[in-house]
Amino acid sequence: MAMHPHLHPPAPGPAAAQAEPSAPFLRACRGLPTPYTPVWFMRQAGRYMPEYRALRAQASLLELIRSPEMAAQITLQPIEAFDLDAAIIFADILPPLAGMGLSLQFVKGEGPQIDNPLQRPYDIDLLATPPAHETLAPTLEAIRLVVKELAPRGVPLIGFAGAPFTLASYAIEGGASRSYTKTKALMYGKPAAWKRLMLKLVTVQADYLLAQAKAGASALQIFDSWAGQALSREAYRRYVQPYNQMLFETVRRAGVPVINFSTGAAAYIDEVAAAGGDVIGADWRMPLGWYWERIGQDRPIQGNLDPTLLLAPWRELKFHVDALLAEAAGRPGHIFNVGHGILPETPVDQVRRLVDYVHEQTRRGA
Amino acid sequence: MAMHPHLHPPAPGPAAAQAEPSAPFLRACRGLPTPYTPVWFMRQAGRYMPEYRALRAQASLLELIRSPEMAAQITLQPIEAFDLDAAIIFADILPPLAGMGLSLQFVKGEGPQIDNPLQRPYDIDLLATPPAHETLAPTLEAIRLVVKELAPRGVPLIGFAGAPFTLASYAIEGGASRSYTKTKALMYGKPAAWKRLMLKLVTVQADYLLAQAKAGASALQIFDSWAGQALSREAYRRYVQPYNQMLFETVRRAGVPVINFSTGAAAYIDEVAAAGGDVIGADWRMPLGWYWERIGQDRPIQGNLDPTLLLAPWRELKFHVDALLAEAAGRPGHIFNVGHGILPETPVDQVRRLVDYVHEQTRRGA
Repeated sequence: MAMHPHLHPPAPGPAAAQAEPSAPFLRACRGLPTPYTPVWFMRQAGRYMPEYRALRAQASLLELIRSPEMAAQITLQPIEAFDLDAAIIFADILPPLAGMGLSLQFVKGEGPQIDNPLQRPYDIDLLATPPAHETLAPTLEAIRLVVKELAPRGVPLIGFAGAPFTLASYAIEGGASRSYTKTKALMYGKPAAWKRLMLKLVTVQADYLLAQAKAGASALQIFDSWAGQALSREAYRRYVQPYNQMLFETVRRAGVPVINFSTGAAAYIDEVAAAGGDVIGADWRMPLGWYWERIGQDRPIQGNLDPTLLLAPWRELKFHVDALLAEAAGRPGHIFNVGHGILPETPVDQVRRLVDYVHEQTRRGA
Repeated sequence: MAMHPHLHPPAPGPAAAQAEPSAPFLRACRGLPTPYTPVWFMRQAGRYMPEYRALRAQASLLELIRSPEMAAQITLQPIEAFDLDAAIIFADILPPLAGMGLSLQFVKGEGPQIDNPLQRPYDIDLLATPPAHETLAPTLEAIRLVVKELAPRGVPLIGFAGAPFTLASYAIEGGASRSYTKTKALMYGKPAAWKRLMLKLVTVQADYLLAQAKAGASALQIFDSWAGQALSREAYRRYVQPYNQMLFETVRRAGVPVINFSTGAAAYIDEVAAAGGDVIGADWRMPLGWYWERIGQDRPIQGNLDPTLLLAPWRELKFHVDALLAEAAGRPGHIFNVGHGILPETPVDQVRRLVDYVHEQTRRGA
């Protein structure tokens, strides 16, 4: 029931500096055969790495993100350490909200915090929609720096942004939430204001994603991390899917593969997939085959190891990885990943062993 | 794929003080026709009611729970205020952990907190498994007091307890969690210790539930609130389902209907239902028909309105209630409820209007 063709030909575009399209990760994004299953991990640059913690000790999260040199360095850390098939720019989904006029900070032990969350419909009308090159220039510059390093090695770089619902939930709740009460109260109770907010977010996020591709990102991932956690299928269809669809439709123009990632949406993954994206990011809740049955057997999937398994002994981790690879059965269009971000407690050696193991187990005859 | 027959005849039991089995709620639990669709709400006694807030201003949550008189009074508050078809004893899922040796408190604005969470397998061996009449006597006494009030009115009382995984997550994380990292690290990494913990929790919870029925509860609900949020289908099958099955099997002996409630488990609701229970509690993520298709058309379902809708204007709430009732199509075996607890921000008038509306809309010719 895909509402637009999800496999589009590599369009002409600003691909000059980008990794060659023969990289296994990019081929898998197009559903093409690869010599082995490509691997990368959400949050692969982050707190579980001592190299990252050393930099983080000197600067806040937002300082690191806003320094192109630091962000580039962090992006490359896991690429130096492991045999990963893609890098993802070190950034966060929330800085676009700061550009729109919300006061964003990360509070130690508390996570993100917005001091002036959206409380009335009028607050939505006051939100700015500046272009990414004005408010998110450091991340775009970091992408240019990273691509210079990665292009010669043939490693693609992934850019990313949050989907409108997920960003709206932070903008309205003022931080992380368990029940998304205020967000859903606005969504259900003030549909006109909700629509204005979603449209503003689509504008800002589409521009940001296109700018990341222009700066050299070879693929893009859109995180709708909380829609599936928060919403019924019916609410997703009415209040979220149309805006995600607009966003995916607009971002196609970049001519790079786009990954549509959500969590907690297994039961209505067909609706999530219908919003768009070349690749569907699956969380760990159901086996890969279950997702393929619902989104179409030829739609590429990225996923879906429970990241907590990286904290288990290798024997247990291996058992689950074997089951996952058996589900994928060596078909084209599988990108190995975790079903949610890597946890800060993850042992570095376990990550290395896992990457190598997936490559070995999936290597196909020349 | 139910592993034991889920509709069992009303067994002889300690039903002397209990509400007559002709109450619509109890009939619906058995899949029998009722004159209208019965309604109750999870957390129907709680912060959204001014009568509750007045008592809560004078005492802590644990003090209220541990006072049989106060707990009984709070249980009855929503029954006095609205035309509800069942009461649920005012309590919390966590006090059994205190009886096992964990130091439980509720911190204002933070929720539950356990100061000595389980950290090593040895901590599990030190947990006690005292009988409910020793450590949970106030709740059992509150049940007796409430049943005395309710029995003459024909309103059944529901007792409840947490399922082993959900309790284990609090015991290990020391409070609420988003990622359940430590819980799953133990589950995946130390399966023998995990099994010992689950078995101890089954022992304590089965005894507690049986004691609640003996004290006069006419039905029981088992909350596995976080299993579906945290676990893959495979992990649920291996590490949770066998223990839930034991618990449901043991609790059948009470001879009262048992409700099996989980959230976030829509995608594998068939596995959740296979663990047992006469009634399956459904969260709001998918339409009722979707659940019935997966658990069997004759299995009673309780649910499943998104509680956030009670914060929306009546017109919007009514639209979703109408859709829900259309899904149920007046069949026997539907108990109207929210898909998760009522939110503290809920307007009291909206609750009253909703209860009356569901009764009116579903009233069937004599």
